[in-house]
Amino acid sequence: VKDELEGRSDAPRAAQIVGFEPCGLVTLLTDFGTSDTFVGVMKGVLWGRSRRLRAAIDLTHAIAAQDVEDAALHLAEARPWFPAGTVHVAVVDPGVGSSRAILAALDGGHLFLAPDNGLLTPVLGAGARVWRVDPARFGLTPPSRTFHGRDVFAPVAAALVDGCDPSSVGLRAEKWQVLPMTAPQPLGAGRVRGQIRRVDRFGNLISNLDADGLERLRGELAKAPRAQFQVRVGEVYAPLVDTYADAAKGAPLALLNSSGWVEVAVRDGDAARLLGVSRGAPIVLEPVP
Amino acid sequence: VKDELEGRSDAPRAAQIVGFEPCGLVTLLTDFGTSDTFVGVMKGVLWGRSRRLRAAIDLTHAIAAQDVEDAALHLAEARPWFPAGTVHVAVVDPGVGSSRAILAALDGGHLFLAPDNGLLTPVLGAGARVWRVDPARFGLTPPSRTFHGRDVFAPVAAALVDGCDPSSVGLRAEKWQVLPMTAPQPLGAGRVRGQIRRVDRFGNLISNLDADGLERLRGELAKAPRAQFQVRVGEVYAPLVDTYADAAKGAPLALLNSSGWVEVAVRDGDAARLLGVSRGAPIVLEPVP
Amino acid sequence: VKDELEGRSDAPRAAQIVGFEPCGLVTLLTDFGTSDTFVGVMKGVLWGRSRRLRAAIDLTHAIAAQDVEDAALHLAEARPWFPAGTVHVAVVDPGVGSSRAILAALDGGHLFLAPDNGLLTPVLGAGARVWRVDPARFGLTPPSRTFHGRDVFAPVAAALVDGCDPSSVGLRAEKWQVLPMTAPQPLGAGRVRGQIRRVDRFGNLISNLDADGLERLRGELAKAPRAQFQVRVGEVYAPLVDTYADAAKGAPLALLNSSGWVEVAVRDGDAARLLGVSRGAPIVLEPVP
Repeated sequence: VKDELEGRSDAPRAAQIVGFEPCGLVTLLTDFGTSDTFVGVMKGVLWGRSRRLRAAIDLTHAIAAQDVEDAALHLAEARPWFPAGTVHVAVVDPGVGSSRAILAALDGGHLFLAPDNGLLTPVLGAGARVWRVDPARFGLTPPSRTFHGRDVFAPVAAALVDGCDPSSVGLRAEKWQVLPMTAPQPLGAGRVRGQIRRVDRFGNLISNLDADGLERLRGELAKAPRAQFQVRVGEVYAPLVDTYADAAKGAPLALLNSSGWVEVAVRDGDAARLLGVSRGAPIVLEPVP
Repeated sequence: VKDELEGRSDAPRAAQIVGFEPCGLVTLLTDFGTSDTFVGVMKGVLWGRSRRLRAAIDLTHAIAAQDVEDAALHLAEARPWFPAGTVHVAVVDPGVGSSRAILAALDGGHLFLAPDNGLLTPVLGAGARVWRVDPARFGLTPPSRTFHGRDVFAPVAAALVDGCDPSSVGLRAEKWQVLPMTAPQPLGAGRVRGQIRRVDRFGNLISNLDADGLERLRGELAKAPRAQFQVRVGEVYAPLVDTYADAAKGAPLALLNSSGWVEVAVRDGDAARLLGVSRGAPIVLEPVP
Repeated sequence: VKDELEGRSDAPRAAQIVGFEPCGLVTLLTDFGTSDTFVGVMKGVLWGRSRRLRAAIDLTHAIAAQDVEDAALHLAEARPWFPAGTVHVAVVDPGVGSSRAILAALDGGHLFLAPDNGLLTPVLGAGARVWRVDPARFGLTPPSRTFHGRDVFAPVAAALVDGCDPSSVGLRAEKWQVLPMTAPQPLGAGRVRGQIRRVDRFGNLISNLDADGLERLRGELAKAPRAQFQVRVGEVYAPLVDTYADAAKGAPLALLNSSGWVEVAVRDGDAARLLGVSRGAPIVLEPVP
């Protein structure tokens, strides 16, 4: 409660009351691509302003233009592999130049900067503390109307890396945009319907079904706790296996991938192309009959 | 005059008489792409030779093969966002292996290394001091005939980052190649004709018309100082607005972009594709009738 | 012999008996692409675990999916330009999740981490010392079955950068996979048949013929030690010249490239496209008649 009150009262630079200890790392996730100098320029601002920056690490800059949901999923998958104290900067921002806020959010020792458009939905838990960045506090008014990544995100991230208290960046936010993430639909009898959410560079199809969901399915099958599972996607059935090498070359398979999601692949092949399946396609996970 | 004489007299390692204080940052801009190891190898040389390097920052490596003008524009747009003391390495070099010189140029506290092919045209002001790099002074003869980025640019940049005086890299240059940058043509009555110089990753069309030019147009319209402006490009008219969000979805618009250039965009769309316009296309900026 | 015995006896953390002195640099070479967060996540693990890391340098992430031979060639070309003490991490790994080993190999002061699939063939000389990484020694069991780059390679690399002795990563290996690299075929009379092994971003065709082979050809021509050479590839003959600028615009040429390989190019053009030649095509190097 005390923290919340202080957050609301907007005390400037209270001594790290919110418990963020920067570790010198910044991640960058944008839809800027790498053909232009946008990303390099953000790094120029970061390195020019920060004295304690150790590395500015690209997560990806290939998010499809303004695809906030895909950005959110990538950020959520990457975050567990960075140490506490990392500042994550995510700029996929269809509303740049409008009145949408920029959020600074603290969750589990990680600090996130992103537009208030739902991008942070999967990374913010119940205990997250969130502020609206006030560029004026950083002497950043009026910023360019089209490149807040350079003019607001990067300088604020540099300040946070160098020890600026998150609670001093602006007023505490009590509400923020939340993306409606499509949830799996239980179908009963150990079956569930999900959706392909991403296609990776290898053509692997990543669904919104996860390890916990699979455990629940097994629970529904009390009489057959050792049941094998399969997924149906497009026109094919793919057995749920442990690893790519468990399938024959060219054969479809499903597995729990390295981020904990059910993924459909083709051994040594491009599943998206070979199965004719793309993002948004339905997928059903079920026991092998 | 003293500086010039000393530059010509080629005194080795005079004590920073030219006023370059390296900050540990290097930028890299090439047409090498990132599929091969060219860029990584340059970084290997930089990090292997320099003890004071803090970061080697990619501006872009996606310049179309040997497109010197586009490289020049990208470098000019990026430079203001880096601190003084940065060493900018730009290698777009159709003449590699010929007798063209490699220039080291100091302007406004920034150090530039580039082939003498006009690449530095927009970043060098009247006060720039320029030297021709003599690889022999760095023990770099004879370098590979096809990869000067690795064999000359990177080792010289590493030396400059570590405190080598720019005036010691070679003889002072009094002349260097200058690109004929296409200038806007005034048409009178508050009208000007320009050109699309770049298309960015979002399909936005960046012209050679800038904020100063717009101010001059307003000056021509003494009777209508509050005139609204529009641009004509391809088959459409686009109103000059403040920000993307001022246009309806799918509507064309023009604005002063984050680097100070007049840019034509389509709200939430790809202007180059939707308007059928590409680099080199004419654009007219004029008051709304 | 002593080293070998100690390697086999698996003494944990013997004091740098194998002579690897880390310099704080890591290189990364994968087929992960940069659209997903795979590479960023590996860097998160590296920077999160290492205290002495200076830079994690991308060689390339654009290796065609699971093209081990191409990865091997890129790694071999890049390695000479990094200082001794570099840890090179190469993950092109069709067998991920199977029982293939992960190798740590020391050669010439460089440390390599790669799957045991032949990737290290061109970088390991006769004096190389090789170990099989035992993830359990790093508390890394059981790792994810699909992302060893993140779960084994990156943490082991971080440990090596921070001073972990290579001989402590696992048992000494006496055998490992070796790629059958296609060798040039001598044809007699100063002629040799080779193969195009890579096409670079400019469309240049890089062959498996090297400077040493060219010297041998000259040796076969005792009566004509100053003979000019040409290559035949596709439908054309290209003269062997010193540098791109020695050919007319649009003309084909061959040269010894910056890595010491015979390369076919078209001056200011894309040789692969213009000559209709791709990887695997035969090439003959011969004296000009």
